[in-house]
Amino acid sequence: MCTRNSQVRVMENTVTNAEKYFGQFCSLLAAYTRKTARLRDKADQLVKQLIDFANTENPEMRATVRNFAEDLAKVQDYRQAEVERLETKVIHPMKLYGAHIKQTRAEIKKFKQVQKNEIKQLEKLEKLRQKSPSDRQMISQAETSVQRASVDASRTTHQLEEMIDTFQKQKLKDLQKILSDFVTIEMVFHAKAVEVYSSAFQSLDSYDLERDLEDFRAKTHGVYGHHDARPLKDTTPSPTVPWSLAGQSTQTAIQSQRGEEESTDHSAEEDPVEDLTGQGQTPHPEGQSSPV
Amino acid sequence: MCTRNSQVRVMENTVTNAEKYFGQFCSLLAAYTRKTARLRDKADQLVKQLIDFANTENPEMRATVRNFAEDLAKVQDYRQAEVERLETKVIHPMKLYGAHIKQTRAEIKKFKQVQKNEIKQLEKLEKLRQKSPSDRQMISQAETSVQRASVDASRTTHQLEEMIDTFQKQKLKDLQKILSDFVTIEMVFHAKAVEVYSSAFQSLDSYDLERDLEDFRAKTHGVYGHHDARPLKDTTPSPTVPWSLAGQSTQTAIQSQRGEEESTDHSAEEDPVEDLTGQGQTPHPEGQSSPV
Repeated sequence: MCTRNSQVRVMENTVTNAEKYFGQFCSLLAAYTRKTARLRDKADQLVKQLIDFANTENPEMRATVRNFAEDLAKVQDYRQAEVERLETKVIHPMKLYGAHIKQTRAEIKKFKQVQKNEIKQLEKLEKLRQKSPSDRQMISQAETSVQRASVDASRTTHQLEEMIDTFQKQKLKDLQKILSDFVTIEMVFHAKAVEVYSSAFQSLDSYDLERDLEDFRAKTHGVYGHHDARPLKDTTPSPTVPWSLAGQSTQTAIQSQRGEEESTDHSAEEDPVEDLTGQGQTPHPEGQSSPV
Repeated sequence: MCTRNSQVRVMENTVTNAEKYFGQFCSLLAAYTRKTARLRDKADQLVKQLIDFANTENPEMRATVRNFAEDLAKVQDYRQAEVERLETKVIHPMKLYGAHIKQTRAEIKKFKQVQKNEIKQLEKLEKLRQKSPSDRQMISQAETSVQRASVDASRTTHQLEEMIDTFQKQKLKDLQKILSDFVTIEMVFHAKAVEVYSSAFQSLDSYDLERDLEDFRAKTHGVYGHHDARPLKDTTPSPTVPWSLAGQSTQTAIQSQRGEEESTDHSAEEDPVEDLTGQGQTPHPEGQSSPV
């Protein structure tokens, strides 16, 4: 009886622990995914503003800002894929795991009832033996009940042993799988971002300030009558990448949250810079200098 | 007069446009940085929970989860550096630029007053000529005032021309610099994240489930009296990586881990690339199934 109690206790601890931590992991990973979605939303807004701005600029800067905006949008598409994959391959399995834990808990409860029944039958037999030691028939019946309850309990103990083993194995396997999927999803996203930003950097680097200023001077001097701007045929914007459509069909649950966020964001806009670091560090010294 | 008005209008449009868009960029980039900081906070919370959980597990899973938590924390250190650098090299210059715009606006106002004065003096002279065409002395005085105001206006026009040029040049230079810095900061962060997650993947991949289950079985069977756990000396957790400091000596770490990345790449290749773009595909079918 004692060993069985210990075994139930080990099992209960294992399940309680798993329930506690997996529950926390699940909600933290969901929050992490939500924050990622909000980061994507902010970047999407920035993309829109950049494109509006690009349209007010001369061809050279227009193309540069537009390319940058398109690259930034591309990264957000990858971020959107990251969000979806985190939902499907990390959060969803975590939730399924929660259901699995509940089921296991029900099994343990059933086992405990079988165990209780054994004790009950034993107590009944003990009572009978003390109260009516001569009632052979009653005692014999009670002994049979005890025996039956014992067989039940013993069988369930074996089942429990197996269940503990299966539960633990499943838990460890699931956890490894979920963490590996998390890492893979993040790794793929970051790798894609590196790729896109590398190309964005190239594009920014090739921006020709002097050419842009020539255009600008031609325009402002044009005010006085001499139009000497270079021909506009050079300035056709780069072929439109369908980035603005890319995210649309895929944004499911997250899209509905977008509206709410915007209204709350404004209040936070004026947060002091230190708030952002959340840790009160002083910024990097090399970053202190003002722009050229 | 007309050309000067046009010139002022060009200048005012340029400044107003810059003010509008740079103001929006600044607050959107600040919001982007804040969301990044919040993502970091969530991940930090997850790290704490993972470490708590690791301490409740057997040595094999304990080491695995702990390593994973340390890698996740490392990425957050890089994210923290990203946040700080965005503040210093992107948001701060944007704010400085706002101050620069205000200053320019004040200059334009001054020019408009000089311009108004010229008109006023001209009107005064016209009035005099109509009202008292014989008052030679008054008219001569008014003519001198007009001349002086004209000289002022002409000088200021040249100043304005220069200012327009300088303003535009500065604006384009600043924008290119700020966007390039943004891209560099993001690129560095994502590259670091790829590096850390690659190593995290390796660590998860080397997790030995069977060994862990042996430990677990030894523990649960221990309840019945036969302790056959493998000696605990094997299970010392991996030497503590000083991950909390990692953000400081970042440069060196990159190269040493590059090699490992390649071997993990295949894991990510299973997923169709299109899925990452988030262009409306249904989620991975294998992600829908319950965990193995």
